[in-house]
Amino acid sequence: MIIVEGWVRMAGEDIGALRVAAAEMMRATKAAEPGCLEYAFALDLAEPGLLRVIERWVDEVALTAHFATPHMAAFNQALAGAKVLGANIKVYDADEVRTIMER
Amino acid sequence: MIIVEGWVRMAGEDIGALRVAAAEMMRATKAAEPGCLEYAFALDLAEPGLLRVIERWVDEVALTAHFATPHMAAFNQALAGAKVLGANIKVYDADEVRTIMER
Repeated sequence: MIIVEGWVRMAGEDIGALRVAAAEMMRATKAAEPGCLEYAFALDLAEPGLLRVIERWVDEVALTAHFATPHMAAFNQALAGAKVLGANIKVYDADEVRTIMER
Repeated sequence: MIIVEGWVRMAGEDIGALRVAAAEMMRATKAAEPGCLEYAFALDLAEPGLLRVIERWVDEVALTAHFATPHMAAFNQALAGAKVLGANIKVYDADEVRTIMER
């Protein structure tokens, strides 16, 4: 399994403008990509200008295919208008160890 | 490295009530725990009642110690008033592979 984890720092108004496109990107990725196990954008609770990225994929092949999808192209167009103030997103090789909480 | 990733679903008013305690938990964990590499709560962009949990730790020893800290005890008290509608949080063994984005 591959985990993608990180953050993008933006001006608050840019995150507001991206909200609809980001929600659509989450929906389209989970609907159209069977190799996607999790795909979420979320607003940091302590710093509202920090967009957190959380993804899990079955393997690197699935992640590579993701970058070539039409919804990625559409999302990149939406992102082009946003000013990125900082970013750090990394890929991790991961194995599930245990469940802490499940309800 | 250990990654903790998952979500807790709550009523919107419960997340609002938790916001200050959660931000303090993020601050205290990063300030007091050298084995903590990342520790964040974030609101899902598509579902505001979904609190996402993102943590990275140097090892299992650091994660175990985290559960015994005074700030964890304080946060658990704050959590006691919230109604959890669903949850899924897992632990992963992880190795950094590469950086996708860094600015």
